[in-house]
Amino acid sequence: MQPTELQISAIPGLPEVVAGDNLGRLIVEAIHSAAMQVKEKDVFVVAQKVVSKAEGRVVPLSTIQPSSLAHAWSDIHDKEAAVVEVVLGQTRRLVRMERGILIVETQQGYVCANAGVDTSNAPPGTVTLLPEDPDSSAARIRDALQEQFGVPLGVIISDTFGRPWREGLVNVALGVAGLDPFLDYRGYHDGFGRRLHATVIAVADEIASAAELVMGKTRRVPVALVRGFDYREAEGWGRNMIRPSEQDLFR
Amino acid sequence: MQPTELQISAIPGLPEVVAGDNLGRLIVEAIHSAAMQVKEKDVFVVAQKVVSKAEGRVVPLSTIQPSSLAHAWSDIHDKEAAVVEVVLGQTRRLVRMERGILIVETQQGYVCANAGVDTSNAPPGTVTLLPEDPDSSAARIRDALQEQFGVPLGVIISDTFGRPWREGLVNVALGVAGLDPFLDYRGYHDGFGRRLHATVIAVADEIASAAELVMGKTRRVPVALVRGFDYREAEGWGRNMIRPSEQDLFR
Repeated sequence: MQPTELQISAIPGLPEVVAGDNLGRLIVEAIHSAAMQVKEKDVFVVAQKVVSKAEGRVVPLSTIQPSSLAHAWSDIHDKEAAVVEVVLGQTRRLVRMERGILIVETQQGYVCANAGVDTSNAPPGTVTLLPEDPDSSAARIRDALQEQFGVPLGVIISDTFGRPWREGLVNVALGVAGLDPFLDYRGYHDGFGRRLHATVIAVADEIASAAELVMGKTRRVPVALVRGFDYREAEGWGRNMIRPSEQDLFR
Repeated sequence: MQPTELQISAIPGLPEVVAGDNLGRLIVEAIHSAAMQVKEKDVFVVAQKVVSKAEGRVVPLSTIQPSSLAHAWSDIHDKEAAVVEVVLGQTRRLVRMERGILIVETQQGYVCANAGVDTSNAPPGTVTLLPEDPDSSAARIRDALQEQFGVPLGVIISDTFGRPWREGLVNVALGVAGLDPFLDYRGYHDGFGRRLHATVIAVADEIASAAELVMGKTRRVPVALVRGFDYREAEGWGRNMIRPSEQDLFR
């Protein structure tokens, strides 16, 4: 079921992405320019930032009227009030609001810092929002890639998120298309013949993390190719990776 | 700073590991048997389970006298009282104890379910504990590998942990030797010349996650080789990946 070797490759040569770009087509062109081959079941991991830019999810801060809550919070914690207002606008529930840190449940359901609103690698005076529906974004890119390459492929839209208990950020899967985001061992047996229970691996997150290692934040390499993982083909649904609030002990 | 291609390879042929085994030497033998090459800065990811077995961190449940707390909890939630007692014995603080789920801070400081005590892939009637000091475990294995191969190498002791907010488990780094577990972008500039802040990537966790994709739970492939990541050489210290309790908003 699992491979013995994976390759993770950066896809170079993607131009600066702007609103209206067909990201699937840009990736196809980058693949061709780099003379890279595409094989059945290759997984393309695409950084959320370029998806957001292509989808026009870029907000000029000059258009924002900060609320009194945004002003109050930004005054105390030396933040930009317009950025805080954008964060609050992307939020459906505040999970933690202390020590200058805003952990929220976004309108899409992700739990993360600052609702995924980001100032880095965005044009000056603007911030990027998360894609409105990363699963649909992934499916659209997958359609474009499959049409071109004629083989089943997977696409993951990724972002770097912090997490409780551990330092540092890791890449996770927001949107998923073409692969089951989980590998479910329940019902399998271990090396001693004992039935495994409660072991479901979030392989889409692990693939996203693997891809981050070649993507980098200071270079423009927002797309990576993961080859060799024999995933279960499925529609995908990264949204299923979000633990339902009522089952979450930490919300 | 970051590579354009990584390879992740399963290392086949490791025998069933028992207490007293020299795990570094077993890995060397497996590498030779598989006719694999080892290169400078290769990272070996080793599953906690085999480290624990080699270090004798295996507890026969028949030796355990469950406390009244272990009995009470196991009665309500249909658990084995001896296993619960072992979990409590590995715990320095209970973080959550509800709905049959025990999230604890282990004696080593990790926050995880059941203190990392595991019944799968352990001999019948026994459970495995986490290594007493995974950083030392990693350093010992690294010493054995470097002595054999004569080049600087990295070693990560990994385990699969759940996390708040997201479904499924992912591999994380418990012990680290030979590489900086973090890639720190603070002070770097993005593509628009804007200074990045607060962006520290937990690359050791991402490497552990990448390795999990070839390791598998139902096959005996507890070691993987990650090649091509140009990490910063350092003593390591996976323990530094644990967020200090006083800075953690979710404990």
